[in-house]
Amino acid sequence: MGSERSEPLRLAVAPDADEAVAEAVRRAGAVVVDLADARALAWTAWTDLASFPQPLPAGIEWVQLPSAGVERWVEAGIIDRARVWTSAAGVCAAPVAEHALALLLAGVRMLPECLRCREWARTEVLPRVGTLDGAAVGIVGGGSIARALIPLLTAVGAEARVVNRSGRAVPGAAQTRPIAAVGDFWEAVDHVVLAAPDTPDTRHLVGAAELDAMKPTAWLVNVARGTIVDTDALVRVLDSAGIAGAGLDVTDPEPLPAAHPLWGHPRVIVTPHVADAAMTLRGFRRRLAENVRRWRAGEELVGVVDPDRGY
Amino acid sequence: MGSERSEPLRLAVAPDADEAVAEAVRRAGAVVVDLADARALAWTAWTDLASFPQPLPAGIEWVQLPSAGVERWVEAGIIDRARVWTSAAGVCAAPVAEHALALLLAGVRMLPECLRCREWARTEVLPRVGTLDGAAVGIVGGGSIARALIPLLTAVGAEARVVNRSGRAVPGAAQTRPIAAVGDFWEAVDHVVLAAPDTPDTRHLVGAAELDAMKPTAWLVNVARGTIVDTDALVRVLDSAGIAGAGLDVTDPEPLPAAHPLWGHPRVIVTPHVADAAMTLRGFRRRLAENVRRWRAGEELVGVVDPDRGY
Repeated sequence: MGSERSEPLRLAVAPDADEAVAEAVRRAGAVVVDLADARALAWTAWTDLASFPQPLPAGIEWVQLPSAGVERWVEAGIIDRARVWTSAAGVCAAPVAEHALALLLAGVRMLPECLRCREWARTEVLPRVGTLDGAAVGIVGGGSIARALIPLLTAVGAEARVVNRSGRAVPGAAQTRPIAAVGDFWEAVDHVVLAAPDTPDTRHLVGAAELDAMKPTAWLVNVARGTIVDTDALVRVLDSAGIAGAGLDVTDPEPLPAAHPLWGHPRVIVTPHVADAAMTLRGFRRRLAENVRRWRAGEELVGVVDPDRGY
Repeated sequence: MGSERSEPLRLAVAPDADEAVAEAVRRAGAVVVDLADARALAWTAWTDLASFPQPLPAGIEWVQLPSAGVERWVEAGIIDRARVWTSAAGVCAAPVAEHALALLLAGVRMLPECLRCREWARTEVLPRVGTLDGAAVGIVGGGSIARALIPLLTAVGAEARVVNRSGRAVPGAAQTRPIAAVGDFWEAVDHVVLAAPDTPDTRHLVGAAELDAMKPTAWLVNVARGTIVDTDALVRVLDSAGIAGAGLDVTDPEPLPAAHPLWGHPRVIVTPHVADAAMTLRGFRRRLAENVRRWRAGEELVGVVDPDRGY
């Protein structure tokens, strides 16, 4: 981003110029100005793409988007090459990783089955209760969610095996493989957590072949994007007890229609895309302030979007 | 136990002389013999007190029991002062702590409510999803379960506040208080995990006053003994939404009768005393072998029972 800047960053905050955001960026060295006078824009609306100012004033050098996944912004043609775009990737990593652990532990500890019980079914439940202690948990995606999840898995005695694009080793993982040479990943791991971005490469990455390869005791947890999984194949493998269950915070289609077979499925936990609910606003403010500080210091921003990769 | 012993320990293993147990103790320096010829007895049956040999041969200097809680053995008058008795306290700490985390996370992440959903209730669920990140989790009991649970809580960003008998600081806890000076513990913590032994002192330790003091967003998790909680008071506070919910692996009465109001309660997860299911046998073998080694080395055994305290 060049060398250190002495003047405050002229930052527009829109569509909602929340006072807590304004205060956070002021402390980091920005002045909040109108879009026409700004060098940077912080966009605070998670879902509102329609009101995004297009074209942007030529003076805007950097746009901070509020969400971790930016595929909708890419598809809408909003992300251009005329300026730097940053996503909020990583901001929600800690709450999403916690949610992944919650879903995985709930599955392994048979909470869905226990919640349906209306009597003390100890004899039936006891021999089937599992543990993450000693388990190998496969993680698809080596980004911020994986990095936040690995210490949690390590704490409960599980080891993480990561599949990512590059195969470059992810800190704390017992193993990292490139997705192009995935080998026996699906059969070897005890459970799988999906934490990859939604890109053309990852769409339906988990299909019938991958699900069939998984252990019958395995739980599949998806806290990434619903489209990574072939939902019809998932329903089939669940119905045939090919895997133990699925914990899904994201679905395809999403929202999941009311009559969908995943609702109330005895082997399924569906949460309505809430993994990143906690601390999101706090996290966004913290990230935005960090990037304002970096901008002024002439350092590389966090979460720079590569328009070619789509994240 | 005195000084180092050169001869192998003559150990009886009953009522089930499982080959894996025999192999483990042989490697640790014992020979498996009949009870009449033994200096020590490893009792392998978790629930079978009736067939326990009484009186024990006078030559038995040490008995290793298979369970962590030994109150039934105390009540049955089996534990005497003529020899050393060791419980398996701590053996199940890791799986029990994992189960406590599973129940607590499931509650905080609203999994019971989501499992009842038959449509995408994002608007209702999203604002109520919590996180353990930044939460203060109270733990009643400062023994092996607390010690196993604290690192798990720390990993997800929670701090542990322990109440125990002595007030002696528990490693990793942000705060340790004696139960006799509990102060604002119940109102101050965000959630409570019960991990105390069942003794006359802890019976109905959690009654109406404690439950009423807890935050309305708090989950109560019990992985210890059902009798620590006044069940009727718990049902009342749950019905009036005085706390967010309860995750119970143990109940009073236990087994929980089929018509009990806790079954199917929308704010309750009941698991049928299975927290320690995983790895129990492996853990017992490991503990027994460790104590055989310590016996031969003249070191203090792990898990020595104090007949006066009942654990």
